[in-house]
Formats: sequence, C-alpha cells, structure tokens
Amino acid sequence: MNKVITLATDFGWGEYVAQMKGVILSINPKAAIIDITHSIKPQNILEGAYIIYSVAPYYSNGIHVGVVDPGVGTERKGLILECKNGFLVGPDNGLLIPCARNLGLKKIYKITERAYFSDPVSNTFHARDIFAPVASHLSLGVLAEEIGELVDEYVNLTLEYSMEKENTLEGKIIFIDSFGNLISSLPKKVIENYLDFGDQVKIELEGMQGKIQKNLRFLKSYGFGEKEELLSTMSSSSFFEISVNQGNAKKLLQVEVGIPIKLRF
Amino acid sequence: MNKVITLATDFGWGEYVAQMKGVILSINPKAAIIDITHSIKPQNILEGAYIIYSVAPYYSNGIHVGVVDPGVGTERKGLILECKNGFLVGPDNGLLIPCARNLGLKKIYKITERAYFSDPVSNTFHARDIFAPVASHLSLGVLAEEIGELVDEYVNLTLEYSMEKENTLEGKIIFIDSFGNLISSLPKKVIENYLDFGDQVKIELEGMQGKIQKNLRFLKSYGFGEKEELLSTMSSSSFFEISVNQGNAKKLLQVEVGIPIKLRF
Amino acid sequence: MNKVITLATDFGWGEYVAQMKGVILSINPKAAIIDITHSIKPQNILEGAYIIYSVAPYYSNGIHVGVVDPGVGTERKGLILECKNGFLVGPDNGLLIPCARNLGLKKIYKITERAYFSDPVSNTFHARDIFAPVASHLSLGVLAEEIGELVDEYVNLTLEYSMEKENTLEGKIIFIDSFGNLISSLPKKVIENYLDFGDQVKIELEGMQGKIQKNLRFLKSYGFGEKEELLSTMSSSSFFEISVNQGNAKKLLQVEVGIPIKLRF
Repeated sequence: MNKVITLATDFGWGEYVAQMKGVILSINPKAAIIDITHSIKPQNILEGAYIIYSVAPYYSNGIHVGVVDPGVGTERKGLILECKNGFLVGPDNGLLIPCARNLGLKKIYKITERAYFSDPVSNTFHARDIFAPVASHLSLGVLAEEIGELVDEYVNLTLEYSMEKENTLEGKIIFIDSFGNLISSLPKKVIENYLDFGDQVKIELEGMQGKIQKNLRFLKSYGFGEKEELLSTMSSSSFFEISVNQGNAKKLLQVEVGIPIKLRF
Repeated sequence: MNKVITLATDFGWGEYVAQMKGVILSINPKAAIIDITHSIKPQNILEGAYIIYSVAPYYSNGIHVGVVDPGVGTERKGLILECKNGFLVGPDNGLLIPCARNLGLKKIYKITERAYFSDPVSNTFHARDIFAPVASHLSLGVLAEEIGELVDEYVNLTLEYSMEKENTLEGKIIFIDSFGNLISSLPKKVIENYLDFGDQVKIELEGMQGKIQKNLRFLKSYGFGEKEELLSTMSSSSFFEISVNQGNAKKLLQVEVGIPIKLRF
Repeated sequence: MNKVITLATDFGWGEYVAQMKGVILSINPKAAIIDITHSIKPQNILEGAYIIYSVAPYYSNGIHVGVVDPGVGTERKGLILECKNGFLVGPDNGLLIPCARNLGLKKIYKITERAYFSDPVSNTFHARDIFAPVASHLSLGVLAEEIGELVDEYVNLTLEYSMEKENTLEGKIIFIDSFGNLISSLPKKVIENYLDFGDQVKIELEGMQGKIQKNLRFLKSYGFGEKEELLSTMSSSSFFEISVNQGNAKKLLQVEVGIPIKLRF
C-alpha cells in the first residue's frame, strides 16, 4: 500500500503546512509525510512544476500533493493523476502535468466526492480541506475512482520550451537551485542536435543589469571544469544548465528565474 | 495510544530541534514527530500561542510541545495540560493556554518527576532535557499524574482582546502569516455584533510610516474580493483579518505584528 | 535494528534533500528520516562537523548522513564510520571525525560496493546516489563490511584548537548558533586550567569593525547573568562560549564564524 505522502507548496514552512499534516495523520496515522519544499515562489506554477517533476521520480509509489494555486476558490478543478509510479493530487493548472508524464500518466480524475473532504471546506484553503484528506484516503487504499470522476480535459503545461532559428536556440531559465545553478527550458533531445561534451557555446542572457554574453564550455559535469569556471552542462533532470564549478552562477551573473536565454552555434 | 508529537519553538530550524528529536526517538522510536514551526519570533509568547492554538486542533490526540521560554532557568513551572483532544507540554507562561481551552482543557499538572527527565538537566535547555522526554513518555502511555502533580494556578493568556467604545472597537494585530495576512485580536463573537458580510468598515492601523486609514469591505473570503483588493474577512481561526486578494497586506501596508487596530462603524 | 536516519547537509531545505529522502524510503519504507539541518554554510566543513558532533549523541543507534563535500567527483573516498552508538556515512574530508570519536569510533570502511549505490551514479551528487542508499541499506541491517572495505587512513579533523602562551590562550569561533551564541574551539579541559565559574576573563575578538576587547564574567549558565549581560560560559558541547543573557552576542559584537579569539588571564 502507498504510505509516503509528499508535500510541495508555496505556503512557507509554518502553520498552514502543519495543519495539512494534522489532517493527513488524523485520517491515516501511519502516513509518512515528507516535505519536498514549501519555498516555491508564491503562485509560481512553473517553478513548482519543475520541482515536483525533478523530485517525485525518486519515490516508489508515492502520493505527491502539489499546491501552487492562484485559482483557489474559483471553478478550477481539483485533480488526482493516477500514474504507473504513484499518484499526484492538486489543482488543475498545469502544476502536476510535467511530473505526471514522467511518472507514467494513466488516468485523470476530477475530485468530486465530498465524503473524502474535510467538513467544512474553506474557500481559500483547499490544500488543507480537500487535497490533504484526499491524499490521506488514497494512502489508506481508497480508489481514485471512488473519490472522483474520469476526465480527459485538463490544463496542460510543459517545462520544455525551445525555438530554433538559423544557428540560434532560444529558451528561458525555469529554475535556479539553492547552489545558484541555472536550469533552462532547453531539453536534452534538442541540445543533442547541436552540442557534444567538450564543445564551446555562446550564450546570451537577460541579466538584471543588461545583456550578458559569454563563451562557455559544455562539459559532462561541474567536476570537469576549472575551479570557479562558468560552464554549461546537462542537468540531472535533462535540461541545459549553466553553472560555476564550486561557485554560484546566479550570484556571478545576477540573473533571475524566468529570463530568456539564447544559444548561438 | 498517542503517537504524534508536534514541536513549535523559537529555536530556528537546526541543531537544537534535532537534539530534541533525538531525545524523543531514543525514548519512543515509534513517535511520529511533526514540526509546526521553529520560526516563532524569539521570546514572542503571543505569536507562539496563536500558532499553537491555530494548528493543534487539526490533530487527533496529538502531544504538542510548545517552547517559547524567556523564563527558562528561573522558578517558572513546566506544565502538562491534559485536554479532551490530546496533551500540551511546555512552560507555564501562558503560551499553551489558548490552545488548551480550544482542545478542551481537563487537568493541569506541574512537571515534577525527575525520573522522566534527561540526566543531567541543563539550566538553559528544558525543551530538550525536560519537555521532550516528558512528551515522549506520554506518547508511550505514561500517565500525566505519574510525571507531575495537579495544580490549579497557572499563568493565563488570552488571544482575544477588544475594547468597545462609542462606535469604535480597538484590538491589536497578533499574527501575520506567510502570505502577509494580518490576524487581529478581535474575535468573531464581538465582530458579529457590528458587521455582516458585505458591509463596509473603516479601519485604522499604526503603520511604520504613520497612521493608516482605509475603508474596507468585510467579505466572506478573499475570493469574493477584486484582484489585489485590500479587504477584511474572518480568519479560519475566527478572528477579524485584513488581507489582499492575491496579494500581501503586510507588504502593502508596511505594518508589524503587535500594532494597534481600530474599527469605526 | 537501526531505523532512524538523520541528514545534515549544505544543500538548503529543498529539492535535493527531498530526492535523498525518496531514495532512502524506496529502499527502506520504514526508515524514520530526521533533518538535523540543511543550512550549513556551503562547503564549510568545520561548521558541519560541529553541528553533527553536537547533535548525533542524542540519538540511540542512529545512522547519520553528513554531506559537506567540496571534493565530490574527485578521488576522495566515501566512508562508513561504525561507532559504539550508531553509524556515520559521508565524504572522507574530516566532517564526520569529531562526531565519530564522540560516538565511540570502532571501524572505518571505504564505501566500494556499487550494488548498494543508485544506478547511475552522477558525478556531482554522491549524497543522493551513494550516501543515501548506503545509509538506507545499513538501516535494513546490511553489514558495513558488505558495503565497503576496512581502511585505517582517513582525513582527520579536530574541533579543538588552542594555543597557550604566557597568560594567553588563543582559539577561534567555530560556530554561531541561531540565538547568536559564539562557540569557540577552546575545550573545557584547557579552560579548566585557567578559569573557575565566577572568575573574570579578558577576551579579544576580531570583529567586522576592528578589534573588540571586553572583560567578561565566566558563569555556570546564562541564567546567572544580569539581563542582557555579555558573559562567558561553557557550552553544552563543552567549549568556551560567549553569550548575552536574553540577547544575541553575534548581533551585539558584529562578529562572524571563523574569527580568532584570545583570552588573557
């Protein structure tokens, strides 16, 4: 039976998350609750989607609750995504979709059955009143089809974004990790057409103090770079990444998540 | 048997909390430990009291250790509060009292039996050396009456504070959550005498840059407001609250926890 | 059987730690994972060593994964340290050694058996791909000798550092806790030759705004000081410590971890 429930939210590490955990444990006292993060930038669906996508595959049959939910209280649906490797529970705004594809998406359910919700349900906190109790019931073995109904429409989202034109590849920075590594939207399968490890690549970024242009080596991993070399590599999540060996690319370049990136060949 | 032990402290997320967890698990390896928060402002008993009060009711028969303890090492008592729904363990300075009333306070014990403490007990860290082991023994089924003795005197604290005079209601801001919502000390039962959802209310706050006066709608929840509207509502903990729909009231108004608030009708 | 696995890293509280937890729980779903901290200053081995040393002894037979690992991807070994009270798992750079001595170091194994690693192993993230799965296998009862081979060479590190010359004792500040207390490298056994509780001691620190000289009382604990008195005491980890009773010594003195400290008698 599924027993691990992970939580990824933009709520901060505090009272709201602790309320969700109380709800989960009151329904299934044996659930093992793991925090993925609660530091997603408020309402930043793309960042949340990347984090859930990059973490959930390390779990066996986990139940992953993801909540970045600017549309809470409106008509947006709540979803259960049944995958080959576990379940995803959260709002229908694209947040869970890249991860679901990665975990082997099988079926999508719109959450409908109030018997599995907290009572009352607040207008503003479906994470605590709907998604947490639904995840906890799933961890007890309740079937997704008892909690919701099959749907085939949902809000789509892709982390991969690349535009190719005459020797140029354009994407954006979709995530900056706690070491300051810049993860782009340029996927391995596109990059492979242009670059081999050991090649040089010319990059352009929109920094906070204007345009940044650099020639970087494309290396198999940081460790192959010189100490404090600004370099490019392939992230463990299979996206083109800009890093500093034993340093912090975000601080060095003074850039923010969301900015465009261009590669010239 | 009680198995969930929650922790709420002003210790920061680090080595001191990890020591407490080691003590708990060494006594009861099956305890499920949940962090409510460790970011309470140092020595801010009122903020701690609000957080514990607003989270603990979501747990079934939890054991809640709360530690904001400026008087550690002095003669202040340590308490076990036995409630209909679980136990509270911590210092006798009011911190746990609002929550205890909410959980159905039955009996108050002064912690006395050194057999249930760590040995030695430091002068400065009763959370680790007394409250953590006491909570862990409670989770194993040891009776509160074996660990302490019944008392009927204790330091009282109330989160509710309101002063009514000729069409004015005065209170203070007792908590600001991670979304910047301002929770006041004005309780639902007083507000109900003055306001219905849909009404307008004139508020006055002492901001960091002087007095702030606003006319706000009093709405059933954020979702009923316009995008980025500054509005008032009733918090899920049943206090008058000031919020921005899809925004941050603390940042907008530049206010701090503890300031006075006035409502004019 | 050992079931508690603690984690202490410089990865920040986020996606990398959550990946480690997924790996651990996929191997041993019953492991109880406890975060010691993930806020160690990046690549600061001394700070990490102090935190692990001061926390792990509160656990009974824990498995402690410590990762501050500037040499990842190079030839540095990965180690299992088998102790009387539990295991330590991490890089061979001194990080785990002070703690190991404290837990009763019995045997040191160099991690070699790829059957206990994740597949593939990244060049940059041995915490997730080697140390996490190795710790999880240890928690299932796999013997250290099955995972590695006995070695007797390792990178040493000591937290204790003191230089004595004519009425002067020199050391450094090795840790500043979340309350702003300054922990020095001067061990109890050296201090005892010079100071009794109640004595005065003249200290010199290299502050950010120049040299700081103070006469401080050496007290049994903070509680014996006046309110907001800058004082010296013995830390619970048995090092000379500078503190402010009900205050913050780091903020008062404007000092950073790593600076020299001199005591004159």
